[in-house]
Amino acid sequence: MNDTSSLRIPIASLGEPRFPSPITASAGPERFVPSEIQWPGDGLPPPPLHLFEKAGPRRDLFFAPERTRAAIVTCGGLCPGLNNVIRSITRELRFAYGVKTVIGIRGGYRGLDPDRGRPPIELSDELVSDIHHKGGTLLGTSRGPVDIPVAVQFLLDHGIDLLFTVGGDGTQRGGQAIFEEAAQRGHPLAVVGIPKTIDNDVLHVSRTFGFGTAVEEAVRVIDSAHTEARCVENGVSLVKVMGRHAGFIAAAATVANQDVNLCLIPEQPFSMEGLLGWLEKRLAYKGHAVIVTAEGAGQELLGASGERDASGNLKLEDIGPFLREAITEYGKTRRMPVILRYFDPSYQIRGCPANTDDAVLCDRFARHAVHAAMSGRTGLVIGFLHGQFVHVPMSLITAGVKRVDLDGELWHAVLSSTGQPAVF
Amino acid sequence: MNDTSSLRIPIASLGEPRFPSPITASAGPERFVPSEIQWPGDGLPPPPLHLFEKAGPRRDLFFAPERTRAAIVTCGGLCPGLNNVIRSITRELRFAYGVKTVIGIRGGYRGLDPDRGRPPIELSDELVSDIHHKGGTLLGTSRGPVDIPVAVQFLLDHGIDLLFTVGGDGTQRGGQAIFEEAAQRGHPLAVVGIPKTIDNDVLHVSRTFGFGTAVEEAVRVIDSAHTEARCVENGVSLVKVMGRHAGFIAAAATVANQDVNLCLIPEQPFSMEGLLGWLEKRLAYKGHAVIVTAEGAGQELLGASGERDASGNLKLEDIGPFLREAITEYGKTRRMPVILRYFDPSYQIRGCPANTDDAVLCDRFARHAVHAAMSGRTGLVIGFLHGQFVHVPMSLITAGVKRVDLDGELWHAVLSSTGQPAVF
Amino acid sequence: MNDTSSLRIPIASLGEPRFPSPITASAGPERFVPSEIQWPGDGLPPPPLHLFEKAGPRRDLFFAPERTRAAIVTCGGLCPGLNNVIRSITRELRFAYGVKTVIGIRGGYRGLDPDRGRPPIELSDELVSDIHHKGGTLLGTSRGPVDIPVAVQFLLDHGIDLLFTVGGDGTQRGGQAIFEEAAQRGHPLAVVGIPKTIDNDVLHVSRTFGFGTAVEEAVRVIDSAHTEARCVENGVSLVKVMGRHAGFIAAAATVANQDVNLCLIPEQPFSMEGLLGWLEKRLAYKGHAVIVTAEGAGQELLGASGERDASGNLKLEDIGPFLREAITEYGKTRRMPVILRYFDPSYQIRGCPANTDDAVLCDRFARHAVHAAMSGRTGLVIGFLHGQFVHVPMSLITAGVKRVDLDGELWHAVLSSTGQPAVF
Amino acid sequence: MNDTSSLRIPIASLGEPRFPSPITASAGPERFVPSEIQWPGDGLPPPPLHLFEKAGPRRDLFFAPERTRAAIVTCGGLCPGLNNVIRSITRELRFAYGVKTVIGIRGGYRGLDPDRGRPPIELSDELVSDIHHKGGTLLGTSRGPVDIPVAVQFLLDHGIDLLFTVGGDGTQRGGQAIFEEAAQRGHPLAVVGIPKTIDNDVLHVSRTFGFGTAVEEAVRVIDSAHTEARCVENGVSLVKVMGRHAGFIAAAATVANQDVNLCLIPEQPFSMEGLLGWLEKRLAYKGHAVIVTAEGAGQELLGASGERDASGNLKLEDIGPFLREAITEYGKTRRMPVILRYFDPSYQIRGCPANTDDAVLCDRFARHAVHAAMSGRTGLVIGFLHGQFVHVPMSLITAGVKRVDLDGELWHAVLSSTGQPAVF
Repeated sequence: MNDTSSLRIPIASLGEPRFPSPITASAGPERFVPSEIQWPGDGLPPPPLHLFEKAGPRRDLFFAPERTRAAIVTCGGLCPGLNNVIRSITRELRFAYGVKTVIGIRGGYRGLDPDRGRPPIELSDELVSDIHHKGGTLLGTSRGPVDIPVAVQFLLDHGIDLLFTVGGDGTQRGGQAIFEEAAQRGHPLAVVGIPKTIDNDVLHVSRTFGFGTAVEEAVRVIDSAHTEARCVENGVSLVKVMGRHAGFIAAAATVANQDVNLCLIPEQPFSMEGLLGWLEKRLAYKGHAVIVTAEGAGQELLGASGERDASGNLKLEDIGPFLREAITEYGKTRRMPVILRYFDPSYQIRGCPANTDDAVLCDRFARHAVHAAMSGRTGLVIGFLHGQFVHVPMSLITAGVKRVDLDGELWHAVLSSTGQPAVF
Repeated sequence: MNDTSSLRIPIASLGEPRFPSPITASAGPERFVPSEIQWPGDGLPPPPLHLFEKAGPRRDLFFAPERTRAAIVTCGGLCPGLNNVIRSITRELRFAYGVKTVIGIRGGYRGLDPDRGRPPIELSDELVSDIHHKGGTLLGTSRGPVDIPVAVQFLLDHGIDLLFTVGGDGTQRGGQAIFEEAAQRGHPLAVVGIPKTIDNDVLHVSRTFGFGTAVEEAVRVIDSAHTEARCVENGVSLVKVMGRHAGFIAAAATVANQDVNLCLIPEQPFSMEGLLGWLEKRLAYKGHAVIVTAEGAGQELLGASGERDASGNLKLEDIGPFLREAITEYGKTRRMPVILRYFDPSYQIRGCPANTDDAVLCDRFARHAVHAAMSGRTGLVIGFLHGQFVHVPMSLITAGVKRVDLDGELWHAVLSSTGQPAVF
Repeated sequence: MNDTSSLRIPIASLGEPRFPSPITASAGPERFVPSEIQWPGDGLPPPPLHLFEKAGPRRDLFFAPERTRAAIVTCGGLCPGLNNVIRSITRELRFAYGVKTVIGIRGGYRGLDPDRGRPPIELSDELVSDIHHKGGTLLGTSRGPVDIPVAVQFLLDHGIDLLFTVGGDGTQRGGQAIFEEAAQRGHPLAVVGIPKTIDNDVLHVSRTFGFGTAVEEAVRVIDSAHTEARCVENGVSLVKVMGRHAGFIAAAATVANQDVNLCLIPEQPFSMEGLLGWLEKRLAYKGHAVIVTAEGAGQELLGASGERDASGNLKLEDIGPFLREAITEYGKTRRMPVILRYFDPSYQIRGCPANTDDAVLCDRFARHAVHAAMSGRTGLVIGFLHGQFVHVPMSLITAGVKRVDLDGELWHAVLSSTGQPAVF
Repeated sequence: MNDTSSLRIPIASLGEPRFPSPITASAGPERFVPSEIQWPGDGLPPPPLHLFEKAGPRRDLFFAPERTRAAIVTCGGLCPGLNNVIRSITRELRFAYGVKTVIGIRGGYRGLDPDRGRPPIELSDELVSDIHHKGGTLLGTSRGPVDIPVAVQFLLDHGIDLLFTVGGDGTQRGGQAIFEEAAQRGHPLAVVGIPKTIDNDVLHVSRTFGFGTAVEEAVRVIDSAHTEARCVENGVSLVKVMGRHAGFIAAAATVANQDVNLCLIPEQPFSMEGLLGWLEKRLAYKGHAVIVTAEGAGQELLGASGERDASGNLKLEDIGPFLREAITEYGKTRRMPVILRYFDPSYQIRGCPANTDDAVLCDRFARHAVHAAMSGRTGLVIGFLHGQFVHVPMSLITAGVKRVDLDGELWHAVLSSTGQPAVF
């Protein structure tokens, strides 16, 4: 491991940088961030799985700012902070680099198809000036795949040099395909992704934007749920939050709120017998219970169909109504009439404006995406690891999902704050 | 109409006041508030329908404070401000009057039955000190009728002189029966009600506590709903809010939020053809729509069963899923695929702590209830009319419900802010 | 008192209405609202001091909507809800009446003087679409008088028929003078005021917009102040809130918050000996104290200069630092070292967006102002009395200020919730 | 660097662990976290400056839980999250480990001196149950040093085995001295600190609890400040936020809010000429300006005295009024009358309850402190580096302060979002 250059994750490049950057002040030599940072008690750490290029402004640019044309597209479900990202990309391009033209693709990838979408809009300073105070995305969004040749033709027709893709797995796969097709046509297109998932389940990104806001809003709802439960006899409040494949929102909201008695996540299977037995004891002892479940929990109990939606996401069975009915029925059979309140605040949470922490996070992701694109890097996503922003190839980030570690600190904090059994 | 004493609404009394009040400073002669205050262009107004006794401290009390024992009970569904009411009743009794014993009945009227409920708790200064910052009710609540003889025996056994009943119609009917039974048994029991309905549909009460908080929280949800709708093509957000017989929450939230495009309330019937036709035009013109519906709207379309719940309330059919499906289906038949998001935040809203305005309102209702009870009045509810707190017999307040006036200002503000047709 | 037409407060009119209104649905015969509504125990009430015309849409208009040109001006200090008022006036004019031209005067009355202010802006639907979510005023504001002949010439030059003046005393006096000068020049100008004072001290207006938001924000600050005080030994938190001549914000915030121990308002003089003696006892007993003072309290102790600012408002001496130093000094002399924290959140409060209740209130004031102006009424302000919106001549509303009634319910709620002595 | 055991930062220990832990599930072999994680382009990174022991539960304990007695003390100024920390320490001790006695020292270190403080309180489950929803500290706090022999005697008298010190530099220095004195007296006392500084300026802690909440509240105030500034001609809003030696709050609030035009921090000196010249241009161009300053900025302009307060902190001169007067004066001399609004929300911010992110952070710090203490470690503080909780000797953490890196990402985000010159 004396020469680690072979460990470095390569990032596709459009060619040699050739123009001096206007913001070189802090640009130093290239630096790298290992994917693992824990060392053993003695000796050196084993070689890291990945060694990621650190993000940041570069001394030289591939694109001449005054001639560069950039486009931004937002895809998939809403997430707090989309407008902050749009705004900070636009402003960094304009004010830090001097790029004159930034356009917004409307309605997600559909907006790259003149036959299906509305024409793009010019993102002027004035237009983006106040959008960060609002939820949603100024540009609109949609689900569904992109027609690669049509999209690339659209980008060529508009003379686009940089494309910023804000979205999830499917979006970044689309971005990869767009960059490759453009390259084949001989058009040097920098495609840089910003990972967007409210579930916080992206590999190589310790925290995605919008996640913190989602937890905050979930906690507000759990507060009301707790109130409902503890004010009646055998009150049970069941709150379903987002989290298709990973229970980060459920877990973090549980730790933040501290009034949850049971937290269910996709990573930890459970049996209904165990759950109902636990609930019966809890009600006998305390008279009420607050249960938070990620939407993807307990799929093994539900017999999912395996179908996929327009974005290619696996369709989930709905754990919420399933639990609601099972608990209510159980209460009846045990002569313990349960007053169950069901809360499903997902859409309400997605539509909120970014909170303060997410606002800062969005700004940082956005500016790093601009630095990467202006330097001629392409086919990458901005990652965030150990507090450092890094460059991650799109193919690497879409290779799997990040999950709650059942042996890790977050899940142990859940178990400590709820007092729930580790397994049932 | 020269002698209006015959118009005055009589309030039952336990007997002549006989102890000087410690808070007589502002007590003047009796004053009355007419139910109607608009005058014609010339001449005097016609005699009002009711002339209500103004609430407030009286110079003399029926009960000797130091020997008085009071009880508080909260019944029915949750509503922001219950803890504020409990706290201010307790503190006014203790600090303003010098009453030593205030107990809290637990779990609603069930707590007046030793066989069914938990024993009452002493409401000490310390116990109530911080409860106003929390939603729900410290005492717990339940639905369902009260067994009058059992309840009166309970009150006699505990030597209760004052009973404060915080609840809706059924609760106040129960309060009336309790007072009458106590009177028959020769026990001078002052029963004073504080009207509780988040729907704001109580006669002779221009604004019930908790309503303003409910509107505020509804507006938060509508903000997210608006964001969801406007960020996708043919986005329709449907928000169901509380309002069984009256659409005050839906209407006020619509006017406050200003982003709602259609507001449905029980008072204004509508046809699905009209609604769907309106929606189609709206989507063609603007591409999205926000619809707010009171839970009691459109019952005429749903074929309600006529059943009643444990509190004697008519069971409603659920307009929310009905509209959700009808709109989604319509979109399919018109080849206008609608992305419908459904929001049902009712329980979340009910469990919130009181906002500032409600906190003040709760304090005022509570202190007036104490004044009335200490003076020996009974079988009444604190009303709030034209900005004045008044005494209203329980029988009068439960005789009907207040509804949104379709010719009044609130509904016209709704029509102005949404631009929706008056009828369809 | 059999013919009450002589009691009616006359409202200046530009002439006979001559065009049918598009929104006559709910227009009935004229109705009036008496300034006093409490009746004695028997017999009729004495004639009211004033009998105000009820506000609302009229069957006929003085102005033909399609040819009408309207202007809006906001003056004086900021207040939550200004943008809501601007937006609802604009939308009611456009959508309900069909008025095509609405312009916004910029920077307060200064904007009516081409030599001093910036040119007006067209208030398009798009421009006002989202402004209600923001604090402040889209139009800007300023203090200081208006040059009447210059202003009237400006309005004539722009062909303005309706002028909406949103501001305090000085603003409405200016509006009156503008209307009179225009009349003298033969120009039928409808000037309709919307009273703006965060202090809530306007005669004939039971609640001004922005007041509720101010109380809510003040309560947030008092929460922190309470925390600071109770976490240290002899902690004293002193919070200065707005209220030059009337203590409504201080009083309402005290009742809403319930953690305040002493509330000082301009209406209730006090001695420093009394205050310091009270504080010493409080600290000995409880170890901390929270004091809320209106900015205009205790002026009699401060020797005010009698000077006036640009808007003609009396300059106040600053009670905050005075109390801070007096209390700190006293602590030293009594060997009771006080940890005093001083909070002055006034500007922070003024700049907030309107809360839900204020949003509704703004909408109602705005639409009533439009109805009055379109009907040809002029020189009036929209009042709000006993839950009814009414027409009040500008001269009547500027004749004095509304004050907290020391014998009234609000102040008694303050005394009850703080436990402070009535006088010291 | 093949054997890195010499790099490891040693942590003092009371002796060999000897009791099995009830929560060993996730305890693996010891792991370490390097202080630097960026690697060069090729080859291995140079040895890190520090190699910290990773925090977490250990397989074996030094203390037998059922016989262990713990104490918690909170010192210094308020900070959002103190109650969360108290609560999670208490609950982790009780529920995860089975410790029976946890006491709370009252009023900071003063509470360790029977002659000066109030007696400690038992931290029962019930007492701490709801405290995390409130700002401040249940235990109270104070400034000032601790009398080491008196404090150690107190701890011996109460049989305390574990002492958790929540506070800043001075507090942790006190904790170190307490542990050393106890050791000298032969009493095995585990002293574990949790770093508390709202300024976020602790070495080896990338984020202290309370900081995020402080930024969020600062942003709220800046929102109002922005509104005030942009609504008047030449409006300047000046907001002073916390940050004695480091500008993290000012910088993060600036990036989050995005409406700030100038951010001043202690790390970046400036000249008044430069500032005033910038302001004049800004006002000429945009008509308003929002300036955020950390309290410790510009000390070089103020001629600080070098005095220290009771906690040993350097007394700062107040930059706020200095700037306020300088700007106002300058406006007068340049015939550009500035309307300056000054905001000083520090105490208001400190007293808030922890927001969601801080609630999670507090929980994690607290549980790690318990793990460390139960294992017999002492004289350490819980650090937080690269997303990992670690053990840091008290002496190391108090050796300096963390500062905003003027070449780092945060400060560049400030410069990008404000557009301010890097130096003036």
